[in-house]
Amino acid sequence: MAKPRRINVAVVGSGVMGVAHSRAWRLLTVDYDLPVDVGLALLACRNERRTSLQRRYGWTDVTDSWTTAVERDDIDIVDICLPGDMHRHVAEAALHAGKHVLCEKPLTTSADDASALAALANHADSGTVAMVGYNYRRIPAIHHARRLVHDGHVGDLRHLRCSFLQDWAIDLASAANWRMDHTRAGFGVLGDLGSHLVDLARHVTGATFGDPHSGIMTTFFADRDGTPITTDDAFVAAVPIVDGGVATFEASRVAAGHRNHLRLEINGTDGSILFDLTEPHALRTVRRGESGWRLLSGTDLHDPWRKNWMGNPATFGTEFTYEYQALDLIESIHNATPTAPTFADAAAVHQTLESIAASAQTPA
Amino acid sequence: MAKPRRINVAVVGSGVMGVAHSRAWRLLTVDYDLPVDVGLALLACRNERRTSLQRRYGWTDVTDSWTTAVERDDIDIVDICLPGDMHRHVAEAALHAGKHVLCEKPLTTSADDASALAALANHADSGTVAMVGYNYRRIPAIHHARRLVHDGHVGDLRHLRCSFLQDWAIDLASAANWRMDHTRAGFGVLGDLGSHLVDLARHVTGATFGDPHSGIMTTFFADRDGTPITTDDAFVAAVPIVDGGVATFEASRVAAGHRNHLRLEINGTDGSILFDLTEPHALRTVRRGESGWRLLSGTDLHDPWRKNWMGNPATFGTEFTYEYQALDLIESIHNATPTAPTFADAAAVHQTLESIAASAQTPA
Amino acid sequence: MAKPRRINVAVVGSGVMGVAHSRAWRLLTVDYDLPVDVGLALLACRNERRTSLQRRYGWTDVTDSWTTAVERDDIDIVDICLPGDMHRHVAEAALHAGKHVLCEKPLTTSADDASALAALANHADSGTVAMVGYNYRRIPAIHHARRLVHDGHVGDLRHLRCSFLQDWAIDLASAANWRMDHTRAGFGVLGDLGSHLVDLARHVTGATFGDPHSGIMTTFFADRDGTPITTDDAFVAAVPIVDGGVATFEASRVAAGHRNHLRLEINGTDGSILFDLTEPHALRTVRRGESGWRLLSGTDLHDPWRKNWMGNPATFGTEFTYEYQALDLIESIHNATPTAPTFADAAAVHQTLESIAASAQTPA
Amino acid sequence: MAKPRRINVAVVGSGVMGVAHSRAWRLLTVDYDLPVDVGLALLACRNERRTSLQRRYGWTDVTDSWTTAVERDDIDIVDICLPGDMHRHVAEAALHAGKHVLCEKPLTTSADDASALAALANHADSGTVAMVGYNYRRIPAIHHARRLVHDGHVGDLRHLRCSFLQDWAIDLASAANWRMDHTRAGFGVLGDLGSHLVDLARHVTGATFGDPHSGIMTTFFADRDGTPITTDDAFVAAVPIVDGGVATFEASRVAAGHRNHLRLEINGTDGSILFDLTEPHALRTVRRGESGWRLLSGTDLHDPWRKNWMGNPATFGTEFTYEYQALDLIESIHNATPTAPTFADAAAVHQTLESIAASAQTPA
Repeated sequence: MAKPRRINVAVVGSGVMGVAHSRAWRLLTVDYDLPVDVGLALLACRNERRTSLQRRYGWTDVTDSWTTAVERDDIDIVDICLPGDMHRHVAEAALHAGKHVLCEKPLTTSADDASALAALANHADSGTVAMVGYNYRRIPAIHHARRLVHDGHVGDLRHLRCSFLQDWAIDLASAANWRMDHTRAGFGVLGDLGSHLVDLARHVTGATFGDPHSGIMTTFFADRDGTPITTDDAFVAAVPIVDGGVATFEASRVAAGHRNHLRLEINGTDGSILFDLTEPHALRTVRRGESGWRLLSGTDLHDPWRKNWMGNPATFGTEFTYEYQALDLIESIHNATPTAPTFADAAAVHQTLESIAASAQTPA
Repeated sequence: MAKPRRINVAVVGSGVMGVAHSRAWRLLTVDYDLPVDVGLALLACRNERRTSLQRRYGWTDVTDSWTTAVERDDIDIVDICLPGDMHRHVAEAALHAGKHVLCEKPLTTSADDASALAALANHADSGTVAMVGYNYRRIPAIHHARRLVHDGHVGDLRHLRCSFLQDWAIDLASAANWRMDHTRAGFGVLGDLGSHLVDLARHVTGATFGDPHSGIMTTFFADRDGTPITTDDAFVAAVPIVDGGVATFEASRVAAGHRNHLRLEINGTDGSILFDLTEPHALRTVRRGESGWRLLSGTDLHDPWRKNWMGNPATFGTEFTYEYQALDLIESIHNATPTAPTFADAAAVHQTLESIAASAQTPA
Repeated sequence: MAKPRRINVAVVGSGVMGVAHSRAWRLLTVDYDLPVDVGLALLACRNERRTSLQRRYGWTDVTDSWTTAVERDDIDIVDICLPGDMHRHVAEAALHAGKHVLCEKPLTTSADDASALAALANHADSGTVAMVGYNYRRIPAIHHARRLVHDGHVGDLRHLRCSFLQDWAIDLASAANWRMDHTRAGFGVLGDLGSHLVDLARHVTGATFGDPHSGIMTTFFADRDGTPITTDDAFVAAVPIVDGGVATFEASRVAAGHRNHLRLEINGTDGSILFDLTEPHALRTVRRGESGWRLLSGTDLHDPWRKNWMGNPATFGTEFTYEYQALDLIESIHNATPTAPTFADAAAVHQTLESIAASAQTPA
Repeated sequence: MAKPRRINVAVVGSGVMGVAHSRAWRLLTVDYDLPVDVGLALLACRNERRTSLQRRYGWTDVTDSWTTAVERDDIDIVDICLPGDMHRHVAEAALHAGKHVLCEKPLTTSADDASALAALANHADSGTVAMVGYNYRRIPAIHHARRLVHDGHVGDLRHLRCSFLQDWAIDLASAANWRMDHTRAGFGVLGDLGSHLVDLARHVTGATFGDPHSGIMTTFFADRDGTPITTDDAFVAAVPIVDGGVATFEASRVAAGHRNHLRLEINGTDGSILFDLTEPHALRTVRRGESGWRLLSGTDLHDPWRKNWMGNPATFGTEFTYEYQALDLIESIHNATPTAPTFADAAAVHQTLESIAASAQTPA
């Protein structure tokens, strides 16, 4: 495939993620000397905000229909930031049209849909890149953790302990939203937060998960102001790791005092690693043969994306993860090299999520 | 029951716990102006160490037979520090002989045995006190946590997250011991560490646990130097809380970097509490209506047992918990007031442990 | 003064700060719906990099002479990112030309120079804004700390404890640079790091500092690879606070294990506050009448600059401080309202630095 | 000197330290298989409490006159737990009577007194041991820190940063006590807390301190309920280290939120060490050539005094330091080997304290 002289991007959607991605694409052109021009060609959203977003981020065109993004020949990347129930339809159309696709997580609302998309992406033109927006993979501390595992720091896995706690839905003051509607979101925190955990666990450790899973899913409020709540407010699950060891996953949106608390711990035969999002610049490690945990932070961590004009690495914000994934997508397309997480990665995540849900027992 | 002018104690056993209890009984008479004399009357153990222990702690008599402790009329308290498989037999004999009993945890190797003992203790003379050595209950921070829950600090329970991680058995350098033998220990870490977790969870929150339980138990080494390993090296379990919420329990003896890491977190509708044994003097709390977690330590914590001659409360060792439980047992006997954990408490713990084990799935 | 329809900016300098400011001006136009157009009109620097910086950040023009920035009528703001020994000359020229000035810290290499600039800024057209780049003022946690002090959280000051430790110059592997040359830098860490501390102490608490100061300045390496080192590698100082209490200041560039560790603690009659740059999103507070320190972070902190598209406040990078100060400068100019730190603030900082240096005793 | 078959101890005083030492002597005989009998022979105090203390700790005799302790031939050790202004007189009498002496810190109320005592101890019979009760030396983490320094972990000293913050005197609710009276206490926190800091700094690093010192001493309340306050509520000082580097010392009894917060940090050319009494079981270390600070705790730390029957080293209380110093004193006497801190150590501490005070400037 001939290297393009310019890569044009269309973002579809203008919610929190549509804005975050718009900013990331704009900053990408500011922060990096890219090997190819990247054009912010089209913002597609039905929301009135599109005009102000166009002005702010410099979108060349706006439209109220996502189909335009798929139909226009000059669009190279369709970046899908829509609610989960629309992902499959839009992604299929984009792949059929030969577009590269970046799709927000979770990829779909079911494992079947995810597998179908993965198969489609796989059979598409080999030059097409399909990537999923599990942005936490690109926190430098997470990247460093993956390298440590790869280099043998932890040995064989014994325990994976993954939790993601939030408290925004702790009481009825939080109105129902689409994440509480099974039809639109698939799962509740299992999909929203659990998918990050499963993706990170796979990414950092390379683990694959066996059977049987077991866990509990809970919905604490049957309805909010008359709207029935049809997704889980919390789940916990224990899952065997193929080749040995046990992974535990937990997420909640009703855990008082936890705003956005992701935590990933790995215990192996030769050492342990702990990442905690309340210390996003840090990683804690220990080796079996050594005394005491070590606290790595800032420039102690390997960061393949950072440039020196981005400020102090010890006080570096995770908002950069969106820019980093955009960078990797561009480089993957330009260099015709693989990147991840792929749609197949996302399908594997969904498979695990559904196994958890299938096995999960709901307390009476 | 007439108040005794003197309470005579017999400790049975001279392992780590037999020594810890001997020291606690000796220090009790040093540290407190007790309302009654406490006599270190008899140390019963088959080990040669009994002579040096007698000299060190001031035991009046020693014997190599536990039956002496039960048979001697002048013994008031039989304090059982034997391996778990002997607890039921000795405790029954002691209760039948009308003795007060302090028994190390876990109370027995099965829920049936524990229930039988609880029934026996319950039907004994109403003046007989039967107590189990779940000593962590008497860490001041744990006591404080219980008061906070009682005072409504957390509201209704949402999550209980209890883990106890150790790493002493991480590899084959650790020889097989009785905790790895199902016949003698019942369970492995489920009994040794999990029983502390379930007891603390019940004690601090008052929760009772419903069905179904679900979890995983794992043994990582089938044998150690030829000795088959027949208990669990690790377990994880999710258990519904009656009246709502989910409790998770986890323990391991192969978690690299964790020497003795007990952690108990409670999330409720109105606030959260976190205790971590790596900060034994501290308790972290947060209220829904307030900003930020608070760190309580030292004299911020309510400590009903401490006297000012014991040094700085912020750097106070948990070795005092053994002395505190001895104090509470003496006061319970002297004042004819109840104390805990009772044998019924221990039976409830065993019930939960067996439910976890029954539901636990063993990875292929 | 009539409100401008457009504010044109010239950055002078292309070192680390020139790049950071260029990025901040560019992001300002991306991240905010400003009440006025902001133009990146001119980048003045002698370095060859100016072409790539022009392309990256979108500077309309570049030049190799700072005088152009002062001379061009269409330039409204001269943003000085040059080495410290050039600040006075360029700032004077800019103020004489009626420009608004943003000048990197420390403002000058001497208190006399700083006072002269402050006087000039003060006598200039009342519509001229002169601001100094003490960017740490705009960390949300620092802003929050200032509000707490203002609201009476700490009462009367007892102790201010300010330290800024780095280790980049720990051995001779670090070559001499301009910060080690008295002529160009004025002071070493006293100017580079100490000026941040004194500015933050004044900003957060409103304290003014009395006499006599006392301290120690030290240079550990007399030369580096033949170049004489004529500034301090470390200093410590104790300074009385007018109205009571004592402030301590310390900085070092040879403190092993400290990459960029600023720490500010305030103890008062009614409470205490602690900020630590290794937890840039957090603030620790305690009140006299309450138990335990509280940990505020993320959305617990008041942040007047943040917009929701900037990602998670709990994992927010301090690189935003440059953008925030640019925003405040624009709003100050547009609304004709005061902003800070002013040149007078900087002159007061220099006065304290020179008092420290004058009193500082150099170990034999 | 023939080894004694029995060593008899007399404690003089029954304040907080008299009780702590009484308990330590009693526990010593419980916790250790000593090479010699240790007798709790005599408690001398004028307080009515002596009877209850006799009963509790098992003192053979009590008296209301300290002279008895010095005069009785069968007393081997005089352990002085009196207010500071009586130390010199009693210690002199005891040394003249050929007794071993353990004296609470600070040794005296002036450097001259301390030097006189040190000279006397030095010229006494070579078998006489004179020790000062700087108990923090025997925290295992402090012991470990000293070993690391000795083994070259930090290289040449750059910074010593020592602080000890308390808040018990924060307001007028705290009545005047003897520590606020210059005649009885010598200094205020400079003597009470600063002496610990200087002793630890010397002990851990081996540093000696040069001239000139500089600092500030402050008394925040001129009187408390009519009683004039004649000692310092807070001090800060910077002191050059002979052979290079700077030590800073700070103490306060009005630092809100700090109950008993001792902190000792060492930065050297090859690494750093941090001890913080709020984590008494832990030590943080970093090496120049390595990434990240390491957290040592519990069994990671070398502890030459601990026996396995003393509970979990990770949750070990500092109350043991009194017992450890008693143990070392007994072994020093029994084995005729030196121990520390000696009276000469204490005299050196006093020299530094007085140099600080002499140089300290008092804010107007």
